Amino acid sequence: MNQSMLMDFYELTMANGYYNTPLKDAICYFDLFYRTNPNNGGYAIFCGLESIVEYINQLHFTKEDVEFLRSKNTFSEEFLDYLLNFKFTGDIYGFKEGSIIFPNEPIITVKATTLEAQLIETYLLLIVNHQSLIATTAKRIVVSAQGKPVLEFGSRRAHGASSAILGARAAYIAGCVGTACTVTDQLYGVPAIGTMAHSWVQMFDSEIEAFTEYCKRYPNNATLLVDTYDVLNSGIPNAIKAFETVLKPLGIKKCGIRIDSGDITYLSKKARKMLDAAGWEECKICISNSLDEYIIMDVLNQGAKIDTFGVGEKLITSKADPVFGGVYKLVAVEKNGEIVPKIKKSENIIKITNPGYKKVYRIYEEGKMIADLIALHDEVYDGKEPLTIFDEQQTWKKRTFTDYVIEEQHVVIFKDGKQVYELPSTEEVKEYCNKQYNLLWDEVTRFTNPHKYYVDLSEKLYNLKYKMLEDIKN
Amino acid sequence: MNQSMLMDFYELTMANGYYNTPLKDAICYFDLFYRTNPNNGGYAIFCGLESIVEYINQLHFTKEDVEFLRSKNTFSEEFLDYLLNFKFTGDIYGFKEGSIIFPNEPIITVKATTLEAQLIETYLLLIVNHQSLIATTAKRIVVSAQGKPVLEFGSRRAHGASSAILGARAAYIAGCVGTACTVTDQLYGVPAIGTMAHSWVQMFDSEIEAFTEYCKRYPNNATLLVDTYDVLNSGIPNAIKAFETVLKPLGIKKCGIRIDSGDITYLSKKARKMLDAAGWEECKICISNSLDEYIIMDVLNQGAKIDTFGVGEKLITSKADPVFGGVYKLVAVEKNGEIVPKIKKSENIIKITNPGYKKVYRIYEEGKMIADLIALHDEVYDGKEPLTIFDEQQTWKKRTFTDYVIEEQHVVIFKDGKQVYELPSTEEVKEYCNKQYNLLWDEVTRFTNPHKYYVDLSEKLYNLKYKMLEDIKN
Repeated sequence: MNQSMLMDFYELTMANGYYNTPLKDAICYFDLFYRTNPNNGGYAIFCGLESIVEYINQLHFTKEDVEFLRSKNTFSEEFLDYLLNFKFTGDIYGFKEGSIIFPNEPIITVKATTLEAQLIETYLLLIVNHQSLIATTAKRIVVSAQGKPVLEFGSRRAHGASSAILGARAAYIAGCVGTACTVTDQLYGVPAIGTMAHSWVQMFDSEIEAFTEYCKRYPNNATLLVDTYDVLNSGIPNAIKAFETVLKPLGIKKCGIRIDSGDITYLSKKARKMLDAAGWEECKICISNSLDEYIIMDVLNQGAKIDTFGVGEKLITSKADPVFGGVYKLVAVEKNGEIVPKIKKSENIIKITNPGYKKVYRIYEEGKMIADLIALHDEVYDGKEPLTIFDEQQTWKKRTFTDYVIEEQHVVIFKDGKQVYELPSTEEVKEYCNKQYNLLWDEVTRFTNPHKYYVDLSEKLYNLKYKMLEDIKN
Repeated sequence: MNQSMLMDFYELTMANGYYNTPLKDAICYFDLFYRTNPNNGGYAIFCGLESIVEYINQLHFTKEDVEFLRSKNTFSEEFLDYLLNFKFTGDIYGFKEGSIIFPNEPIITVKATTLEAQLIETYLLLIVNHQSLIATTAKRIVVSAQGKPVLEFGSRRAHGASSAILGARAAYIAGCVGTACTVTDQLYGVPAIGTMAHSWVQMFDSEIEAFTEYCKRYPNNATLLVDTYDVLNSGIPNAIKAFETVLKPLGIKKCGIRIDSGDITYLSKKARKMLDAAGWEECKICISNSLDEYIIMDVLNQGAKIDTFGVGEKLITSKADPVFGGVYKLVAVEKNGEIVPKIKKSENIIKITNPGYKKVYRIYEEGKMIADLIALHDEVYDGKEPLTIFDEQQTWKKRTFTDYVIEEQHVVIFKDGKQVYELPSTEEVKEYCNKQYNLLWDEVTRFTNPHKYYVDLSEKLYNLKYKMLEDIKN
């Protein structure tokens, strides 16, 4: 798959347009950020850094690519030549993958020539928007399951191959314990699991034969799908028979059933009773029937006897809110050795950007994250002095921290086109994500009316922004 | 990208499980179908056949794949050997790409050995679910624009690379006139278009300089983005100035502006007046601001002066309904030379399957499609006799056709593992889709409470299905 050519056509018309101007070699700064949390939540999870690194490292244009672009009769030969020799030579800064992120703060900052920074826009957005969306939604689902394992089962309803593969990875990072997607295991080490579909049961002459044959083949991993014909009257009794016939003589007590339709609270309670009565207390009950975080909370509140949740379409498509609205905006251009800040005004106030080359600080109090501070790149906060932050809209709303820890959030990913950040393993990203989540106050993580986490501007940045808005107005 | 390994893990545990049973070489039949139309609509569009053909033709397992699977300690060496030499040898039947399709009828039927049919399940579903979803949603958006061109602008909000690339193709097939996604042009010939982002405008010292420079470079394709600072007070006046300075001396009258934020009805009306007053009647107005079919209908009803719609996130993610619920169910297995039908019962009535190896007929009356009839494979309807169909639930609801045309819908795509169907070009699929759509009654295509198109069972299939349900009950 040609990742380099996956870009909005306007990246190319703009890049070609810059080519014969003094802007060609100008260094500029773009911020990638988002404006609202998915699902009316209080936070998001940044996911996709590994894909970004992979993309930047492979970025190049082949002769065939250039030949295709030539056929559009839009680009100069010099520009096409430039593409043939293209190499990304800029810097990329950003949050670590698995970080908790908030609206309006730069998740990624790109410092590069106009052409380079422009050409990577679409793909960077595509990666971050997709994977952060799925990680954020998956975390909600995992949290709703109150510690019971959640499996990602959505490949067949994903929006194409990369949606399935990378969505499964994002879900794992956010706390799912495994996936049905085999290639995500092969590529990223996310444990792939699975036993049988209804077709296995139908393929044999009887349900009991299908179950017995399965137990014989996989005595240590026998999770039987019990809803092909009739859960209570046939599925569970046959499952118990198969366990008795095959597993019992082997001394195996661990096994499972899966229910994929019907009233899951009712059926799981009945199933638990039937299994316990037959002495199969260790048999796990897995449920997979168009689940989401609200259904999971609801059935658990009702006392459903479920050990594992398999979540498909509503996780892998983030059905309740399938758009993560990350954008990529020019914030500064270097001119005569100076960094000149840039702003985008808009009729929609939410679409006004924060100008300048910036960095993000996170403030911790009592061991929890309490506020983020967006500052200009040359500001330094070391936590040694009391720090007062204020709300951008209601500037009289202030808060002063005295006993606090402050930490810069961006790490350097690429420097002069070279990857300088060593990617952690998937397991490490997952662990980091879990640690990050535990630093949030419950008020921020709750589903309904979460507290709005403070993301404030430093005084210097605030003054710059509002002076620029005044200047445009005049 | 390793497409072959993108499968639910249970496809592999089942296939390995069949390996040492008489079922290994049994020929079975699977139907791929869906249960409800997206967006409460009256129909769907089948999209994804080209991807299916590409997938089946490349299907193989490498040494590395097998090595990975061996590491799971789950599969027999014979089975792993089988995978190394795997080749799909079955038949695939299905609707032509771009067809109008309805719930519960087989879109694709696979006839193959148990192992082969099982191993391709996940990927077939993934393709059809994704691409049919986007085509169906795109058609609604295209229809809402009442003949004005719709451009697909969603790559950056897509769920990964294949969502962007193949979503853009699906949108084009359904009637969009182009895409922002460059690689979809390169791969599928879908015209890629684009001019500038806000960054182009910000990059220069002033908006007028940015516009003038753009017009100089692309005088024949100058669509200027006018909402970076202030649409009415700066954007449009500067656009007109740039047109006057650069285009007028060249005798060029065709040009455009794009508005990406704000009240689009108000702004487009004002813009039209300003452009007309300045003599730029041929300047097109393009709007792109989180549009969907309802917003488009609404602004057109209000008299917005829009020539082109750029639709992004709500199309490429099918935001209002991001799940196409296609499933893949076993319907028959050959045993001793006989085709033995199979059924899946369920607590959820909608999840009960139609058994048997089947085909789909479409009935036309007065030049429009009026009903589909699902029949067993050995039934023949030639339109020469009057034909009575009846509703599956309310069997007293009958309808007899006398003056009608009847047409089998499935074509043979693969025969004994060989592709026997020549794929039409993207343009041909697009044209076919448009023709198909025009065969629908308005009652079926309307957005609110569409008429439920008849999809009935032949008497023979009906009798088979209900006898099998009775047999399970007993």
